[in-house]
Amino acid sequence: MANPVLPSSGVLSPLGLDDVRLAPGFWGGRVTLNRDVTIAHCQEWMEREGWIGNFRGRRPRRGREFSDSEIYKLLEAMAWAGHPDLTPLAETVARAQEGDGYLNTRWTGNRYSDLEWGHELYCYGHLIQAGVARLRNHGEDRLTEVARRAADHVCRRFMDTNETCGHPEIEMALVELYRATGAERYLEMARRLVERRGLPALGEIHLGRAYFQDDLPVRQAQVFRGHAVRALYLASGAVDVAVETGDEALLKAIEAQWERTVARRTHLTGGMGSRHADESFGEDYELPPDRAYSETCAGIASIMLAHRLLLATGDARYADVAERTLYNVLATAVALDGRSFFYANPLRVRVPAEPLDGVNHAAEGGLRSPWFDVSCCPNNIARTLASFAAYVATADPGGIQIHHYTPGEIRHGSLALRVETGYPWSGEVTVRVLSDASGRVSLRVPPWATGATLSRTSSAGSPEGSPDSASGGSAVRTVAPGYATVEGEWRAGDVIRLELPMKARWTFPDRRVDALRGSVAVERGPLVYCAESVDDEPPLADVAARVTVPPAVAAAAAVVPDGEGPIEVEMRVEMGVEIAAVLGAPDADEWPYRAEPDPVGGADTTLRLVPYHRWGNRGPATMRVWLPVAE
Amino acid sequence: MANPVLPSSGVLSPLGLDDVRLAPGFWGGRVTLNRDVTIAHCQEWMEREGWIGNFRGRRPRRGREFSDSEIYKLLEAMAWAGHPDLTPLAETVARAQEGDGYLNTRWTGNRYSDLEWGHELYCYGHLIQAGVARLRNHGEDRLTEVARRAADHVCRRFMDTNETCGHPEIEMALVELYRATGAERYLEMARRLVERRGLPALGEIHLGRAYFQDDLPVRQAQVFRGHAVRALYLASGAVDVAVETGDEALLKAIEAQWERTVARRTHLTGGMGSRHADESFGEDYELPPDRAYSETCAGIASIMLAHRLLLATGDARYADVAERTLYNVLATAVALDGRSFFYANPLRVRVPAEPLDGVNHAAEGGLRSPWFDVSCCPNNIARTLASFAAYVATADPGGIQIHHYTPGEIRHGSLALRVETGYPWSGEVTVRVLSDASGRVSLRVPPWATGATLSRTSSAGSPEGSPDSASGGSAVRTVAPGYATVEGEWRAGDVIRLELPMKARWTFPDRRVDALRGSVAVERGPLVYCAESVDDEPPLADVAARVTVPPAVAAAAAVVPDGEGPIEVEMRVEMGVEIAAVLGAPDADEWPYRAEPDPVGGADTTLRLVPYHRWGNRGPATMRVWLPVAE
Repeated sequence: MANPVLPSSGVLSPLGLDDVRLAPGFWGGRVTLNRDVTIAHCQEWMEREGWIGNFRGRRPRRGREFSDSEIYKLLEAMAWAGHPDLTPLAETVARAQEGDGYLNTRWTGNRYSDLEWGHELYCYGHLIQAGVARLRNHGEDRLTEVARRAADHVCRRFMDTNETCGHPEIEMALVELYRATGAERYLEMARRLVERRGLPALGEIHLGRAYFQDDLPVRQAQVFRGHAVRALYLASGAVDVAVETGDEALLKAIEAQWERTVARRTHLTGGMGSRHADESFGEDYELPPDRAYSETCAGIASIMLAHRLLLATGDARYADVAERTLYNVLATAVALDGRSFFYANPLRVRVPAEPLDGVNHAAEGGLRSPWFDVSCCPNNIARTLASFAAYVATADPGGIQIHHYTPGEIRHGSLALRVETGYPWSGEVTVRVLSDASGRVSLRVPPWATGATLSRTSSAGSPEGSPDSASGGSAVRTVAPGYATVEGEWRAGDVIRLELPMKARWTFPDRRVDALRGSVAVERGPLVYCAESVDDEPPLADVAARVTVPPAVAAAAAVVPDGEGPIEVEMRVEMGVEIAAVLGAPDADEWPYRAEPDPVGGADTTLRLVPYHRWGNRGPATMRVWLPVAE
Repeated sequence: MANPVLPSSGVLSPLGLDDVRLAPGFWGGRVTLNRDVTIAHCQEWMEREGWIGNFRGRRPRRGREFSDSEIYKLLEAMAWAGHPDLTPLAETVARAQEGDGYLNTRWTGNRYSDLEWGHELYCYGHLIQAGVARLRNHGEDRLTEVARRAADHVCRRFMDTNETCGHPEIEMALVELYRATGAERYLEMARRLVERRGLPALGEIHLGRAYFQDDLPVRQAQVFRGHAVRALYLASGAVDVAVETGDEALLKAIEAQWERTVARRTHLTGGMGSRHADESFGEDYELPPDRAYSETCAGIASIMLAHRLLLATGDARYADVAERTLYNVLATAVALDGRSFFYANPLRVRVPAEPLDGVNHAAEGGLRSPWFDVSCCPNNIARTLASFAAYVATADPGGIQIHHYTPGEIRHGSLALRVETGYPWSGEVTVRVLSDASGRVSLRVPPWATGATLSRTSSAGSPEGSPDSASGGSAVRTVAPGYATVEGEWRAGDVIRLELPMKARWTFPDRRVDALRGSVAVERGPLVYCAESVDDEPPLADVAARVTVPPAVAAAAAVVPDGEGPIEVEMRVEMGVEIAAVLGAPDADEWPYRAEPDPVGGADTTLRLVPYHRWGNRGPATMRVWLPVAE
């Protein structure tokens, strides 16, 4: 089964890339673009920057201490995509491996001399994930052999120490290698790495132990904290260990940490991490939009974690958060041409960024860049989109659950379904049964979709388009958020129709989020919207929303010119939203603290909003997700 | 004249430490504590950390690349304080100077190999300022000689290049050395360093050229940007150059940059700098209280700049901002025992900091620390408090201007005045004329002091306490913010009384400061207040202010136990404020973005506020300056 996560137990079982075939659509277009453009883009940049050359022994070595991991992430992407460049690149990597399995272009000759910052086990983690991807989507080859030898080396070297790596990642990789091979030492190594963290297992660093989650044992923590990617990778590994060892307490601990983090430390987009200084979660409710860091890799890590928790528990809220993050972080982080990327994904950009052709030395989020000094995000996007189909649907003994709506076909057991939808632009999802079968079909109803309806139309005698006909259709019924389930025997041609209400809606923050007080955002379906200062938009610093008038969906428009690559039609659709707004700035440009309140008012105007994931594709601009509420 | 800044022209002339004698009071107590405790504390820590040992040639060298500057700042503090340890410490420094004047313990043997980050000219700047302090408060000695030799070396090495230092500071030091010695090469060197910056004069760094103000020529910039201390030191040097060279355009440019920065990039406390990641100003109106960086050194630099602009222009608004920063950044940054310090001064602390006895590796602002890896702030506080008297008053051909009210005596020409006041706890300021004289006396009326009154009582025949008596007193008149002036001939015993209204008051933010929308703060006189979670305060995350009830001053209380040092009585006074508040948290602990507004309400309570500069003197606590406005 071709899936990055294949637990041996859990409420739901994932379907793989072989079970879920994507057709053109929001995600299908992006997956194609990723395969045809982004993967090659990443490979070219890593050749240019010398990070691949490091494996050829070229000196001086180039790139940061963790740059090996980028090649491994790309190899994982190539493995899922069935990309022809995988074999020669894997061969280059293989030749750099030492006799005992050690492999690292930065620390060779000086092994494990800086576990806090060296990233050696982190790099292995990505190598092993690439190996597992290759094994599952192709079979044994040179890459899988290199990954296993590295994993065996790690087990020999670290099984009986109390050490770990400053950057978690290898934990989930080792569990997956255990799942793929059955070799229990990998699971035991992962279990020990999870358990020894926080005893503590690492030395002091100036950022403090919480930075790399070595301040507390995993099962004692209350919330995710410190460096967001580290925290979320560790939690993912802990879930994997908990599931494979039947450790209910550990699973519950991560669930509780996730719950508090989602309630108090997550941006509207699903983005995680408030602080630029150490790429960390802030404190509870510390969520200023200006400086939302919301790193792309943290968003991906959050999707990975939510997917694992969904599989373990079957709870729809994990898929809800994954969906929010997919549409508003992952889809945002890559440009429509597949060649430039956001590292940070702030919710407010006050000054248009300077265009930059070359390597971006900073991680700011004003404009997508073709490459970064720390270029973790592009390769992480590549491997995630390459394995996107693995997140769409799952199975349990009773049938299939569809979590994310995108056109394509899903097969499991006797059930074969075709999903037709314009989601997220349209709320209509049609699931067509392709052959006679029996089993339950469950469709996720997102929490915002109050009033969603479901109907079933039988192919036998039911006229097309009359789902409520007595002969073959079931009545349209309202379904609550969670999973809407249709049970029964199926005939080829039967149809299930889910209708999700897609009105644009206002969203208000919890009063404890200081930085958002008196502000409002617009969402529609799973999409967060934003104002963007291209065309003739008014100055975004001076607008406010009139929330007494509901936001209105504007006509769909194809505002993005054709790219050079094979961009799917879907990617040129933009469903805008218009809101009633006021425009007005205080006259004063003086000390900004005064004896009287400064009411948010101005002259009536309308403001057009675009989906957040689309912003920044038309050149430098200002942008804001949260707007002041006009008084 | 003993003053760190002695321009040869300008609307106002500074008075020196010899003209202004401080008596016990808010600042007098702090200046004494600084002289008796803080200076020795800094010296001890720099011996312990090896930073002084570096000058003795001990290897391996210890401390950061700029640690030499810390010894120089301490020498400046010692020079102003007339401290006996100056001579041996200066001797230690002198012995490390090379034959041609070069002096740096980090880069000796590898001079000027990293101008972007090396801080060599920055260190000279502090050395030269120490030398000037010594020259003015004592006379020529070994320290002044070392400083001059270093300055001469800099002029020889850099006069005809296009290079500069990554950290501005030497510009103002060289101008001051010119002022103190008359040697024009120092002014010319300073002028060239100011002018060549931004052409650009430095190499690329990953933080971008704006970080060290090398993105634009000084006179073309619109606002202070990048690293806050660097920006403010550069601006101070530019003002000094402008004043000495009669460059009106340059002066106007800095005034305009200051004006926009104060209107859009300054915290309520006067603190400057929003971002932790690069210690920089954020964009306009990017002022989240959580992560206000508001570095102590940036506050000091802002006071230095405002003082220079005040001298050049005579405009009260510069003294207004200086006062705000003195009371709410400088006074905040040092503990009541003089032995621990804030580096960052955030306006919100959500989680009590962990107590720490040793060196603080971070710059977070949760608890004052005895020392830091980057320990710029303690020595900067020491030199600023040691020269505090220099900021109090100025003179012009017509008389004396008093800018900051603290008990003491001020003498200039024939005028000798004694100031008696309990400011900032009380708004009554009494200025007693000590001998017969003539001249104008001007008293600054801060912008919040609407309704301030002034009266003059003649000693001849006027009964004590009847300022409006026809015989010897003038009528009480209301005076507007700015300078209130009394002209005339004076007899010993004449009295001027200024009465500043000291009601606690609500302060609201400009609507453009997103992170403060719907919030309110309390100020009283020059003091910003805050809620602090010691004693039995309610959880600060769940309180809101009822702004329909005016804040009330609570009885003065001596809540701080006697320290070990000779703390003045004044430092034990605390004038609290009580406000009507509501207390209530939402029940939900779930996704914090919802379809309905979350009104700020709760059960009625009262909340006690303390002056912001006093917070954190009673152990770990949460704190907030801005409170939500209850609906």
